[in-house]
Amino acid sequence: MKTPRLRRSPAVAFQGERGAFSEQAVRQLLGPSAAVLPCVRFEDIFRNLKQGSVAGAMVPIENTLAGSVHENYDHLLHFELPIVAETSVRIVHNLIAPKGVGFRQIKRVYSHPVALNQCLDFFLANPQIERIPYYDTAGSAKMVVEEGLTDAGAIASAVAAEIYGAHILRRSIESDRQNFTRFFLLRTPAYAKRHPLRAPAGTVWKTSLVFSTRNIPGALFRALSAFALRDLNCTKIESRPLRGKPYEYLFYLDFLGHVDHPHSRNALHHLEEVADFLRVLGCYPKGA
Amino acid sequence: MKTPRLRRSPAVAFQGERGAFSEQAVRQLLGPSAAVLPCVRFEDIFRNLKQGSVAGAMVPIENTLAGSVHENYDHLLHFELPIVAETSVRIVHNLIAPKGVGFRQIKRVYSHPVALNQCLDFFLANPQIERIPYYDTAGSAKMVVEEGLTDAGAIASAVAAEIYGAHILRRSIESDRQNFTRFFLLRTPAYAKRHPLRAPAGTVWKTSLVFSTRNIPGALFRALSAFALRDLNCTKIESRPLRGKPYEYLFYLDFLGHVDHPHSRNALHHLEEVADFLRVLGCYPKGA
Repeated sequence: MKTPRLRRSPAVAFQGERGAFSEQAVRQLLGPSAAVLPCVRFEDIFRNLKQGSVAGAMVPIENTLAGSVHENYDHLLHFELPIVAETSVRIVHNLIAPKGVGFRQIKRVYSHPVALNQCLDFFLANPQIERIPYYDTAGSAKMVVEEGLTDAGAIASAVAAEIYGAHILRRSIESDRQNFTRFFLLRTPAYAKRHPLRAPAGTVWKTSLVFSTRNIPGALFRALSAFALRDLNCTKIESRPLRGKPYEYLFYLDFLGHVDHPHSRNALHHLEEVADFLRVLGCYPKGA
Repeated sequence: MKTPRLRRSPAVAFQGERGAFSEQAVRQLLGPSAAVLPCVRFEDIFRNLKQGSVAGAMVPIENTLAGSVHENYDHLLHFELPIVAETSVRIVHNLIAPKGVGFRQIKRVYSHPVALNQCLDFFLANPQIERIPYYDTAGSAKMVVEEGLTDAGAIASAVAAEIYGAHILRRSIESDRQNFTRFFLLRTPAYAKRHPLRAPAGTVWKTSLVFSTRNIPGALFRALSAFALRDLNCTKIESRPLRGKPYEYLFYLDFLGHVDHPHSRNALHHLEEVADFLRVLGCYPKGA
């Protein structure tokens, strides 16, 4: 895993092929020249960061159409790697083909089933084109280029088209433009300590945490009161099953506030009183 | 879809092959002779009930290890079919083989990847046995019997063993016994009206609903106050993305109480005041 390149330029791990929307999230947060390490499974990116093989991990946490990526909530709890940034990527699906292939030649389009389903209007308007499910969006762009297909395209990001030297035949063919994925950038605790976040005055901060409540009536209401009574805005709450306690839950919560601000500190103190378990997962500038 | 058998004995649709844990849920609620209609996808069972091809649908809604079945929450909202009962099935995984095949002959075991993963202790203790992912637990039992395999087994429910005439080589090989799936029984609104639920005095009732709040600080806290201020116990809350409003959410909530009880009526009235949208999905006796 530790190639000389990785040592020279610490990479950020993400799940998927080069050109995945996760890579676009890396570019949004760290610039176009950030080194990346594509991984097969979500667990691999957490493990790579935990072991220090990479300097960061880019983790999709929720999509505005499909909902939360629940597996990654579980990994956040298990691996204890701090969230240091968030960013939201608009999911723009493009019809991509090898250079020299024109739109009229396209008989088949490969992509991840979710991406194919998100372009239903395009397929309704182009019934001559067959949809073929593939394991990955960026992977489908890679495949049509590497195989040199002359009658097939892929649905993937603009970054994928650039990386695989394909061209974009139709831009933004997704049916619903309100399609965003929110990503967390994770670092190791040591890295986060060496590189404390600096943000301009006026930055809005967000804190992510996970807690469980005692299994009593009104427990979640009491937990949320820690924030509501201090006018702290909770932007997201997600429940996950608590292992070993059937039909009890862990709650993942994001609120606007910096852990070091007095209101937030008091809220966390209050939450500790009413929670069985509480852990802060990270404090980072609110993304655009 | 409407076979003579279905007309004689109105069937309950479920997702998966005969012998799936959903069929066990049907038996728990409706007895061992209830007619069933296996369907390929979750959407199919909702559609079949909506169209009146079946008299009921058995829908898994959450598992105590894997979490909520989010797709089915979305279908509950979309199809508007009332929940009339719930039941919890303990997920007991059994090693199943065609009759005449003994444990020592087993070289390979087929099952759904989730089931294989839930029996890791068994595979650690039996390293000679290869795990092979298959599309369905009950389907793997069906396949090893139909193919007459003499060196392979399946991991599935006891109901699957019975249905396919297989035998159980090892009972309850799951690593974690705290593995339950909660199911909803849905009916058509007309059927639910013709057959009002009767339950003995002292029955504890549960109500399921879905709501969205205005996107203001403390909105969820205010919504939960409708229940907390009346000592009504919320047993589950689940958030799902609100289509067209990125990073806003729908909340699915279960609480203990009958919609016709004064406290519950007042709570729903209170919730309506603070919610943008509210719909009751069902009111049913709390399952064991």
